[in-house]
Parts: sequence; structure tokens; C-alpha cells
Amino acid sequence: MRLAVIEGDGIGREVIPAAVKVLDAFGLEFEKVPLELGYTRWERTGTAISNDDLETIKECDAVLFGAITTVPDPNYKSVLLTIRKELDLYANVRPVKPLPGITGVTGRNDFDFIIVRENTEGLYSGIEEIGPEISWTKRVVTRKGSERIAEYACKLAKKRKNKLTIVHKSNVLKSDKLFLDVCRQTASANGVEYEDMLVDSMAYNLIMHPERYDIVVTTNLFGDILSDMCAALVGSLGLVPSANIGEKYAFFEPVHGSAPDIAGKGIANPLAAILCVKMLLEWMGEPRSQIIDEAITNVLQKKIITPDLGGTASTMEVGNAVAEYV
Amino acid sequence: MRLAVIEGDGIGREVIPAAVKVLDAFGLEFEKVPLELGYTRWERTGTAISNDDLETIKECDAVLFGAITTVPDPNYKSVLLTIRKELDLYANVRPVKPLPGITGVTGRNDFDFIIVRENTEGLYSGIEEIGPEISWTKRVVTRKGSERIAEYACKLAKKRKNKLTIVHKSNVLKSDKLFLDVCRQTASANGVEYEDMLVDSMAYNLIMHPERYDIVVTTNLFGDILSDMCAALVGSLGLVPSANIGEKYAFFEPVHGSAPDIAGKGIANPLAAILCVKMLLEWMGEPRSQIIDEAITNVLQKKIITPDLGGTASTMEVGNAVAEYV
Ligand SMILES: CC(C)[C@H](C(=O)O)[C@@H](O)C(=O)O
Ligand SMILES: CC(C)[C@H](C(=O)O)[C@@H](O)C(=O)O
Repeated sequence: MRLAVIEGDGIGREVIPAAVKVLDAFGLEFEKVPLELGYTRWERTGTAISNDDLETIKECDAVLFGAITTVPDPNYKSVLLTIRKELDLYANVRPVKPLPGITGVTGRNDFDFIIVRENTEGLYSGIEEIGPEISWTKRVVTRKGSERIAEYACKLAKKRKNKLTIVHKSNVLKSDKLFLDVCRQTASANGVEYEDMLVDSMAYNLIMHPERYDIVVTTNLFGDILSDMCAALVGSLGLVPSANIGEKYAFFEPVHGSAPDIAGKGIANPLAAILCVKMLLEWMGEPRSQIIDEAITNVLQKKIITPDLGGTASTMEVGNAVAEYV
Repeated sequence: MRLAVIEGDGIGREVIPAAVKVLDAFGLEFEKVPLELGYTRWERTGTAISNDDLETIKECDAVLFGAITTVPDPNYKSVLLTIRKELDLYANVRPVKPLPGITGVTGRNDFDFIIVRENTEGLYSGIEEIGPEISWTKRVVTRKGSERIAEYACKLAKKRKNKLTIVHKSNVLKSDKLFLDVCRQTASANGVEYEDMLVDSMAYNLIMHPERYDIVVTTNLFGDILSDMCAALVGSLGLVPSANIGEKYAFFEPVHGSAPDIAGKGIANPLAAILCVKMLLEWMGEPRSQIIDEAITNVLQKKIITPDLGGTASTMEVGNAVAEYV
């Protein structure tokens, strides 16, 4: 098992070392391949990611990723999007689940759902044209793309409550009719119960009634928006992990960004990155992955928490405490 | 002053009569032109809106609109979208403000902002192609479209805190770079302070820190999603009004839909529709429009509220009580 480790920029350089501590505590055989990519690298060399880097990544099985600051260059192509595309990571999986003792902005903790976001097409097609008077982007929905994400969502649903919510905007976007139809058919074929909901209603309902949902499947940018929004339910962007899954590779990243405002202070919350390690272990089929939940519960009880949660612990102190429990 | 009154379907037929009661209480000279449009009409006649209807609407100055159920016909074109387009209603204005004594899902009421949504282009371009294997929609951003919505937002900002938040996704959509640039330039030219935010971060921040915002300007579908989401901050979709404004015409509609599940029971909350009347009066420059706020405060204190707010009053009872106070 080879794991590419990309800290990236800003707090990525702080939370990933903490998460790696936790991973190391499992004592598994890993070859770790560190890669310096992103803004800092771009400043130094003019390239954020090279073809060689991509080859190195492709020789790994999985990637643990921190965060990357967007480069303010019009010709710049996002490292994250490049890797998602090159490794064909078609499923972006974002569990939304409260952590013990932490209440989000609505004060409730009776929810536990997963947003499954199509990760290769939609508004991320890259098909666009920029002009001074008019610019456009093509939002592309394909049967193949919709089928594989629907299959993925159904597979997850079957391991859980067998309930799928298909999120779309087919009352305006005729292109979403294809997505909706394929998801319905796939759910039927898999014997998964389903409902569908317009993305605007869903944004409202996820905040009002998060307990209603189990597996939520949607197109690329809708998933992007809804999953960030749902971090408010959990309490902080610093608490939500995500996995980008393909046939061959998997890529794990906290939903939060590089947070330049707090970078370098050692106070970033590493829990999202640590939950990424949990997702990595799950993906590998490692049965002990659940210990991470226990360890986090323990550390939260002991109030070893970073300032965003009202504590005084540093990033590494939280990482060490979780690793020790493991 | 001629006002087209379109109840539409479902609870539209209940909340609009209640709102009209309130309007009538102002004793203004209005010629009301009732129009039956939408799903019910389509069932009866095969057309949801005809060219004659459009002509009738164009002979009016403004429209009060309830809600319309989407017709499940692939060739069907939304009545709402048709009217927005035909009347060139380029600014969709959605105030997000708590009502006295009603707390939304986050328990806070220290916010008061307005979402200004570009209402004619973006993903609502209508430029799309449907196929069995691939479907697409063109997301179009024009300088002209961006300029006029930015001007509108700046005009509003100057009447308030002079603060604009531009919401976009220009790290992925190069087309949003045009929107962002034009909004920045327009804000600068108008002496309005501005910041910008990615739509995913904004979805999170609006829920976490709604007090930070004053005027939020964004593209069409982002505005659609964010404004529905923000109804959760206020407490219910039944409480948020919206205005669609053009150079010549204005169109007022509650953000909620036709709600077939509760339609016909007389229990729909008419406050969003009543707040639409307030927006209509404001648009007309009627100085007494503020009385509606007072009246609503009074009615809420007396607990004359519909079941969604925990009361037992009917739609018409709420309408009558507000009208009486006025
Ligand atoms: C950084 C950006 C390109 C990315 C996206 O839009 O997918 C991010 O918001 C995410 O959700 O992973
Ligand atoms: C009904 C639908 C076409 C409409 C939209 O998407 O604009 C609605 O959601 C709204 O926000 O007014």
C-alpha cells in the first residue's frame, strides 16, 4: 500500500501531520510518498502540479490531502480538480454526522447522512469560453456519469437505511432530467427506496429536517454547495471529512480549505483530517477504523480541543491525543 | 395602477386572497386584473399561460403571484420563468429578516440582509440540449446582465449599510470571473464597500454568521439555492417574500411553492404573501408600507398564527387580522 501525502498550503501543513500521527498509530504497512504541491510550490517554481507529480500519484493507491490555496493566475488549473480528473475519482463522499458533545448551529444531533456528489462532470466539465461581453460554461450530464454515481450511492444505501434522496433542478435544467431518470432507474433496479427533491428545497430541508435523510445523491456543484452548508449542522467546517473515490484510486481530504487567516499558528482543528484517515482505513477494509470514533469521543470528553471548539489545545496536541488512544 | 393577480395553484389560491385583503385595507386606487394561470389551467385547457395572458400582464404595472405547481410535461415551460423573461425582470430581491417573536432554526434573530439574485441568465439561459446519453445546459454570464444586477445591488446597498458581498464560484467557473469582475468594478464606481465569497463557503457562512451580511449579490441559480436555504434562518419558507424587478414591471411572489400537501385546508401561512404586498407598496413608493410590519408584529403578539408556527388560525383569519390593523 502506497499513500501519497499532500499537505498543500496553509493549515494543510498542520492538520495532515496530525492525521498522519493517527494513521501511524495503527501500525500498518504503508509506504508514504510525500509530495509538495499547490500555491507554495507554484510561488517557488511556477507550477502547482507537474506531469511527473501525477505519475508519482498514479503509482500510489491512495492520497491523503490537506488543502490548497487557489493561485490567482487565470491560466492556473486547480491541483484538486486535476487530480480528481486524472484519477477519475467519480464519487465525492461527504458524511454529515455530529461528533459527540459538539452541537452545530441548530443545536440538534439526531442526524447522520452522507452526501454522495458526482465528481467528474456537471459544471466542472471545463467546457467554457470567456469573453469580455459574454462567458459561458457547459453543465454536462451524461448517462454513464449518472449511472456510476447512482450505483455508488445505492451500494452505500444498502449498507445503511436503504433510502436515497435524489437532488436535482429538473424543473429548470432539462439536463437534470437525465440525472434524475437514471438515478430513479438505478435505485429501482437495486431495490433501494427513493425520493427526489429540488436543490433549493433540499437546501432548506437539510437545515430544517436533517434527520430525514440517509443517502443524498446529487450533481457536482450542488453537492459542493450542500456539503459545505451541512458543515454548519455539524458545527464547523473543521469537522467534516470527505473521500473522492474512483475504480482504482481513492483520495481523502478535509472539506475545509487552507484557511490562511489561522495558518502557521498551530491552532487548526485536525479532526476533519483525522476523520479522513478513518475513511481511508474504511476504504482499505481495515476493521479497526471505528477506533478513531472512540478515540475522538475520548479526546472530546477530555476537552483536548482546539480554539474553534472553545479549547486551548494545539493541532498536534489533539493529533497526539487521538493517536495515543488508538 | 393596474395589478395582475395570479393566485396559481395549491396554497397560492389561499394566501393571495388573504394578501389582497391587506392590500385593499390601504384604500389605494388599484385596478385588479385576475388571471388564472398554471397547473389547474393547464389541466383544463392544455396551456398554462398563453400569449394573450402575457399581453394582459404587460398592460399591467405589477403582478402579485401566489405559486404554481410544475406541470409534468417535458414540453412545458414554467409560467414563472416565462413571465420573468417576457417582462425582463432582471432582479430577484429576497429580504431575509426575522419576524418578531419567531426564531428560526438557529435560534438567532440578529440578522437582516437581502439576497439580490440575477434573474435572467446563468443556468436559466434555456440554452440546452437533451439526449439519451448526454444532456447539457449552458450557464451564461454577460457583462450587461452582470452590470445591471450589480447596479441594482449597489443602489440597495447605498440605502443601507453600503456593504456588498459578491457570491460566485470563479475558482471553478471561469464564466463567473466576468460576474465577479463586473460586480467589483460597479461597487468601486459606486463607492460601495465589497467583499467576495465562493458560493460553497457562503452557504456555510450564511448559516453560521448571518449577521455579517447586508446586500448579497449573486448569479441566478446560486441565488435560488441560497435564498431557500435562508428561509430556515427566518423559521419557515412560509415567511419569506420576494420581488422580481425590471425596468418597467415588478412581480411579487412568496418564496414558497404551491405546497400540494396542505393545499385546500385553509391553513397555509399567508405572511410571505402579505410581505409581498409590503414589497409592492415599497416599490410604488407608498410611505405607509411599514405599517404592514407593525401589523404583523401585532398579530404575532396576539398569537393569531397558522399551524406551521404553532397556532390554530386559518389563512384568512391571519389575513383579516393584519388587514384590520392596517
Ligand atoms: C477548491 C474547489 C475547487 C473544490 C470544489 O469546488 O470542488 C472545493 O470546494 C471542494 O468542495 O472540494
Ligand atoms: C419554480 C422555479 C422555477 C423557481 C426558480 O427556480 O427560480 C423557484 O424556485 C423560485 O425560486 O422562484
